[in-house]
Amino acid sequence: MLSKNQLKYIQSLHQKKYRQQHGAFLVEGAKSVQEVLQSNFQTELVVATEVFYKENAHLTDRQRIPVEIASVADLERAGTLESNNAALAVVRTKENRPLLAKPNEIALILDDIRDPGNLGTILRIADWYGVQKILCSETTADVYNPKVISASKGSFTRVSWWYGNVTEFLSQSGSYSTSQPIVYGAFLNGADVHTLSFGTSGYVVMGNESNGIRPEVAQYVTQRVTIPRYGEAESLNVGIATAILLDNIRRVGQAK
Amino acid sequence: MLSKNQLKYIQSLHQKKYRQQHGAFLVEGAKSVQEVLQSNFQTELVVATEVFYKENAHLTDRQRIPVEIASVADLERAGTLESNNAALAVVRTKENRPLLAKPNEIALILDDIRDPGNLGTILRIADWYGVQKILCSETTADVYNPKVISASKGSFTRVSWWYGNVTEFLSQSGSYSTSQPIVYGAFLNGADVHTLSFGTSGYVVMGNESNGIRPEVAQYVTQRVTIPRYGEAESLNVGIATAILLDNIRRVGQAK
Repeated sequence: MLSKNQLKYIQSLHQKKYRQQHGAFLVEGAKSVQEVLQSNFQTELVVATEVFYKENAHLTDRQRIPVEIASVADLERAGTLESNNAALAVVRTKENRPLLAKPNEIALILDDIRDPGNLGTILRIADWYGVQKILCSETTADVYNPKVISASKGSFTRVSWWYGNVTEFLSQSGSYSTSQPIVYGAFLNGADVHTLSFGTSGYVVMGNESNGIRPEVAQYVTQRVTIPRYGEAESLNVGIATAILLDNIRRVGQAK
Repeated sequence: MLSKNQLKYIQSLHQKKYRQQHGAFLVEGAKSVQEVLQSNFQTELVVATEVFYKENAHLTDRQRIPVEIASVADLERAGTLESNNAALAVVRTKENRPLLAKPNEIALILDDIRDPGNLGTILRIADWYGVQKILCSETTADVYNPKVISASKGSFTRVSWWYGNVTEFLSQSGSYSTSQPIVYGAFLNGADVHTLSFGTSGYVVMGNESNGIRPEVAQYVTQRVTIPRYGEAESLNVGIATAILLDNIRRVGQAK
C-alpha cells in the first residue's frame, strides 16, 4: 500500500522543480513501465496493481526494486494519466552529459520546442529512424515531463539527450571533429528534400512551433532544406516535419 | 451580447448528437474563424471580442453574418478551447456526398481512425500534400468534433470528406472507373516506400491506431507498402505514417 508520504512524493514529480530537486521522474502505464524496467534507467519504486505485479514480478524482483501494490484509483491519484490500470515507476534522472554526433551519425538539435507532446513524438520518431542523440536548447520542454515520457511510447529509453546552449555548441562544433559537420535546418527557401544529396552525418535542427529556428542558431545552418508543398496548408507540425526530414535523409543514406 | 439560448445552443454543439441534430458545428480561434469566413462553408453566427470584430468586420459584414460581441470569459464558456481571446463561429455542416478519386488523383481512406487529434492532423497533412478527398469509415472520429477542426489548423476548409462503408466502397471501386484503381495500404511486409514506383492516382488506406487496417478492408489493398525502420521504436503514429507515405508518393509522382 502507498503511504501518504509516498503519494506526496510521487505527486511532487508532476512538477519540474521537484523532479530536479529529487533527481527523479515518473513513467506511467503498462508498456512504458515494462520498457523502463528493461532499460539502463535506475528505477527506485514501482507502484502496481496486483495483476500487473504478478505478470511482471520477474522484471522488478530480479533487480530488487521495491514494489507497492495499489488500486487503480490510487494509481490515478498518484500519477498524471487519466486512466492507468497497470503501474507507474519512479525512475532516477540521468546526468546531463554533452553529446556529439560521431562520423556517420545523424543527431537532432531542438531549438525551443515548447510542446511536451511534440517533444515526446520527436523522441519516438528519432528512435524509429535510428537517431540516438538529441541536443535541446534550455528553453525546450523538459524531457522528464510525464507528457513527454508518455508520448514517446517507450522511446525515451533508447534515445539520449543533452540540455544546454545550442548556439554555443554549434559555434564550437567544428573544433570537436576533424571536419566541419553539416548542419541541416528547415527554411522556406532551402533545397528540396526530395532531390538533395543528404550526407550520412551531421545535425538536423528543428525550430520552435511558431517561430521556427532562432536567427542566432540559423547562422550555423550550413544546408537549408525545404519540404515541398503540393497543397495549401500553411505549415506542418514540427513532429511531422522531423519525420519527413529523417525519412528523406535515411532514404538517401541507404542508397549510397 | 450572447443570450442564454445562444449560449445553450453553442454548448450543445460540443456533442456529436446535437451537431447532427442541428446540422452545425463550431470553429474556434482567430485563425480558424478567419479561414472559415473566407471558405465556401456557410456561417450562421460569429461570437467575437470587440477587438476581433473590428479587425475582421469586412469578413462578416460582406456576407451579412450575425455577430455577437462577447467577453473572453463568455467565449471560453461557450466554446471548448481552454483559451480563446478572439472568436468562434457556428457553421453549417455539409451534405455527406460520395467521393471518388479522379485519374491522376490520390485520395485517402481512413479505416477507423479514432483519435480526433490524429484526424485533425491528417486533414492538415492531406492539405499540405494536395490531397483533397478523404473517405472515412463510419467508425472514424467525427470530423466536426471541435478538436478535429482545431487540430486541422484551417485545413478543414480545403479538404472534402465522406463517411460511409469503406469496405463496400472498395468492393465496387473498380466499377466506378475505367481501370481498377491502385489501393495502397501500410503493412509490415510491404514494398519499401523509398524504392517503390508509386503511381499518381489511387487510394491510400490508413488504419486504426492500435489495430491497423481491418482484414475486410485489407483484402482490397492491391499494393502493400512499408515505411522502413532504422531504429527500435515499435510503430509510428498514424499521422506521421500518413505524412511519410504522401511525401514518398509525391516525390515519385514529381519525378515522373
